[in-house]
Amino acid sequence: MRGRLLITCPDRHGIVAAVAGFLADCGANIISSDQHSTDPEGGEFFMRMEFNLEHGALEGFEEVAARFDMEYTLHDASVPKRMAVLVSKEEHCLVDLLWRHRRGELDATIPYVASNHPDWAADVEGFGLPYHHVPFPNEPELIELLRGSCDLVVLARYMRILSGDFLSAVGVPIINIHHSFLPAFIGSGPYAKAKERGVKLIGATAHYVTEDLDEGPIIEQDVIRVSHAETAAELQRRGADVERAVLSRAVAWHSEDRVLRHQNHTIVFA
Amino acid sequence: MRGRLLITCPDRHGIVAAVAGFLADCGANIISSDQHSTDPEGGEFFMRMEFNLEHGALEGFEEVAARFDMEYTLHDASVPKRMAVLVSKEEHCLVDLLWRHRRGELDATIPYVASNHPDWAADVEGFGLPYHHVPFPNEPELIELLRGSCDLVVLARYMRILSGDFLSAVGVPIINIHHSFLPAFIGSGPYAKAKERGVKLIGATAHYVTEDLDEGPIIEQDVIRVSHAETAAELQRRGADVERAVLSRAVAWHSEDRVLRHQNHTIVFA
Amino acid sequence: MRGRLLITCPDRHGIVAAVAGFLADCGANIISSDQHSTDPEGGEFFMRMEFNLEHGALEGFEEVAARFDMEYTLHDASVPKRMAVLVSKEEHCLVDLLWRHRRGELDATIPYVASNHPDWAADVEGFGLPYHHVPFPNEPELIELLRGSCDLVVLARYMRILSGDFLSAVGVPIINIHHSFLPAFIGSGPYAKAKERGVKLIGATAHYVTEDLDEGPIIEQDVIRVSHAETAAELQRRGADVERAVLSRAVAWHSEDRVLRHQNHTIVFA
Amino acid sequence: MRGRLLITCPDRHGIVAAVAGFLADCGANIISSDQHSTDPEGGEFFMRMEFNLEHGALEGFEEVAARFDMEYTLHDASVPKRMAVLVSKEEHCLVDLLWRHRRGELDATIPYVASNHPDWAADVEGFGLPYHHVPFPNEPELIELLRGSCDLVVLARYMRILSGDFLSAVGVPIINIHHSFLPAFIGSGPYAKAKERGVKLIGATAHYVTEDLDEGPIIEQDVIRVSHAETAAELQRRGADVERAVLSRAVAWHSEDRVLRHQNHTIVFA
Repeated sequence: MRGRLLITCPDRHGIVAAVAGFLADCGANIISSDQHSTDPEGGEFFMRMEFNLEHGALEGFEEVAARFDMEYTLHDASVPKRMAVLVSKEEHCLVDLLWRHRRGELDATIPYVASNHPDWAADVEGFGLPYHHVPFPNEPELIELLRGSCDLVVLARYMRILSGDFLSAVGVPIINIHHSFLPAFIGSGPYAKAKERGVKLIGATAHYVTEDLDEGPIIEQDVIRVSHAETAAELQRRGADVERAVLSRAVAWHSEDRVLRHQNHTIVFA
Repeated sequence: MRGRLLITCPDRHGIVAAVAGFLADCGANIISSDQHSTDPEGGEFFMRMEFNLEHGALEGFEEVAARFDMEYTLHDASVPKRMAVLVSKEEHCLVDLLWRHRRGELDATIPYVASNHPDWAADVEGFGLPYHHVPFPNEPELIELLRGSCDLVVLARYMRILSGDFLSAVGVPIINIHHSFLPAFIGSGPYAKAKERGVKLIGATAHYVTEDLDEGPIIEQDVIRVSHAETAAELQRRGADVERAVLSRAVAWHSEDRVLRHQNHTIVFA
Repeated sequence: MRGRLLITCPDRHGIVAAVAGFLADCGANIISSDQHSTDPEGGEFFMRMEFNLEHGALEGFEEVAARFDMEYTLHDASVPKRMAVLVSKEEHCLVDLLWRHRRGELDATIPYVASNHPDWAADVEGFGLPYHHVPFPNEPELIELLRGSCDLVVLARYMRILSGDFLSAVGVPIINIHHSFLPAFIGSGPYAKAKERGVKLIGATAHYVTEDLDEGPIIEQDVIRVSHAETAAELQRRGADVERAVLSRAVAWHSEDRVLRHQNHTIVFA
Repeated sequence: MRGRLLITCPDRHGIVAAVAGFLADCGANIISSDQHSTDPEGGEFFMRMEFNLEHGALEGFEEVAARFDMEYTLHDASVPKRMAVLVSKEEHCLVDLLWRHRRGELDATIPYVASNHPDWAADVEGFGLPYHHVPFPNEPELIELLRGSCDLVVLARYMRILSGDFLSAVGVPIINIHHSFLPAFIGSGPYAKAKERGVKLIGATAHYVTEDLDEGPIIEQDVIRVSHAETAAELQRRGADVERAVLSRAVAWHSEDRVLRHQNHTIVFA
């Protein structure tokens, strides 16, 4: 078994020793280990350990967890996450995910793609995956589709705001790609706003979706240089390359259990 | 004479031919030429031509200018701009400018440095330049100092808001460095705000100062990657490197007459 | 007509005036203009002018060209270049080109894709394009296929060395993507060599193919940061993203007549 | 005590548990922990742990080290390394180090600066530091100066090749900045070579010095974009910014014991 152990707890002496000792006693070999503390004295502590366990099982970690007030999750790396992809009228992020999935670059499966448009059915089916066309308004149908059938929802340029009820009902993490370097240019039309403001960089931001539009925890961001010579349409075209790169990295990291959430922040052990 | 001709006018057929023809008739050799149009049909046209004129003078350009409704400025490249530098408590941008000036990287002179703090007198005088300590409140004294004695004011982390009256009274362009990638994190404390929001990039923005705080035309921006592991103090330290690089580029471009302003935008022929 | 005029000649007074004057006299409106001189006194001069000509034709440029010893080409922007794509076992560059072509991002047509492997037939045909499987050794068959049927050959990770006779026989520019930042790691296996040397950046280079392997004029390069933690296989996977981005930019610039060649250099008016 | 423990040993089960357990038993709190293995089965294992120890001492680690065949070093973080800086005719890297040192950005002291030129005496003394002018040929005098008086030598654009005997005699790590992205453009004149080859990126490399010129383990590299328009002199000027940034990062990481060497590679826990 290749496993990943994610831990959050109050920072305190002896955590690493206790966890590493537990794994060693179980016969597990630690492959990689990352940790972060918001403050060594009285802060919050985060840890990710990836390990190999050739024989036997991890048993009795509850005792360690209780001793240190840990919240933890244990992931079997051989079970890829099921990633539902939602898309609207722009397909660049979708196609990039499909293609990386086919190349084996994403540690995830794609059970299906859903869209409020019929446009991308041929593309998706060309990759051997089901395509669900669910026209707006569609929250109940989407909930019906997503609930229980995926471990992650990726909004690959899905241009509708999702309600808090939707988020609760779906009950799995949702990653969105926003086409600006947040917190600049929140909301719609960020490339036009960027042109209007005359910025010299444009970017994209992948974040977990919360009820507050474009305010959720940021996973990844990137930018490219632009100049006065580019129109808003050209910004949009060049920005598409940044969007797909940023979303792909965020999705890959989430799939490999490299992202921990803390309040409105992420800890990314990339 | 090495000259630079900057032109703004309505876009129309024949502008380049008229200007290049005029320069050729005067015996000038065009060294570099850049142009931009917001729209080839009915847009605004911007041009920068740098030329050598070995004998004689440019005479009679008014006629060409009138024919095309041009606004234009003609700069003698052998006359460097006088650049007054204002600084408060953080010296990294100041030192970078002083050092680049000494290396001959800036096509500008620094007649003096002024500050509301006495702290940097030794540094500045070590570079052989005068240092004026002008404690707050100081707008009248600064106006007295700056007026007529400089062609450009650089706010190298000068942390006071300047009034509209001040801007009018000084009457030359003012370049500021803001320690975030605008329009994100306007106002004070941008690194703390960046930490709070959990961004994965921090940056800096050089812009012309207008009456609207942090809203003037952007000349240059850049960013660096950061992670959850860095504190706000570390963001500030690493951001200082971006600030000085961005400000230096903006100042160099302005000094070489590479920046044209149009509404709240810049055209940068870098 | 939207036209692009590319000029190379000895640098001399009056070139811009003569060309811009000629275009103005023909009634053409210059949309963009770029120039470069290796040396204003006695150097080589390069110019690209893009223009609109609503009525009539450009006639008589030969006279201007003769006066200044110009070599020039005139391109009708409404006639996209025919770009033949060759690929071997790695499809990432191919797929990126196909997808950008479909999005309308490339000012070029793809008449067909050819490969020494049958593997990518379904992908290519899914984009509605012909696929030619031409197994090694295949120079005569490839020459037969390419000659006269394309204006540009793109080696999208085509892993065979082409002979000088092949280059002559095909007679159009050939762009290759090499999977390192040249001149580092010439030849085969650059990611393994990069891992062996312990570099902290890996990259890719798009260049025109000449008889000297990996020595032709460089059009574009880019890099990404890597660390000790990445294996050669991971470098290869991450490098694939750089390769496709770099090749796409080079192909787009060539297609828009933005690249001039001079000895073993390129002048890129991007 | 704030301590840093650096470990190299064959990879094997239980290392992290043993080290973390030892530190916990001593009452030390682990602040940060990084590890790397060249291969979880039979590879080489590297670890850096930074810890706080409020009372008592670390005693008896030899037993743990022996059990796992570890090579290790233990550093007291309160004792900054003494960094001797050598410079020739270009001062940009020197000035950047002096200035960062004054700002407190480097966890190191600078006991003196030495040069084969007298030029930078005023600069260095302006920072309150001794300056030794040691004209060429000078290996014996330099050995005399350096031996025992520093923990690290930084070649801040010191343009002489050092003999193997010199390296042995000095006996501390030596970091050099080379003005190209190695392995491209080894040896002298890399900017002229870069211009000649027509590259679109230039860069710099900080590496440990070995007897093989420009072949030592790379610590850090970076690049910037350039174009056909820049002369070799302009590449040199812009490259200077990359050189000083790259060297400063490498020196900072070395000073904080973040760099481990393995054969001709570095493991950088930055």
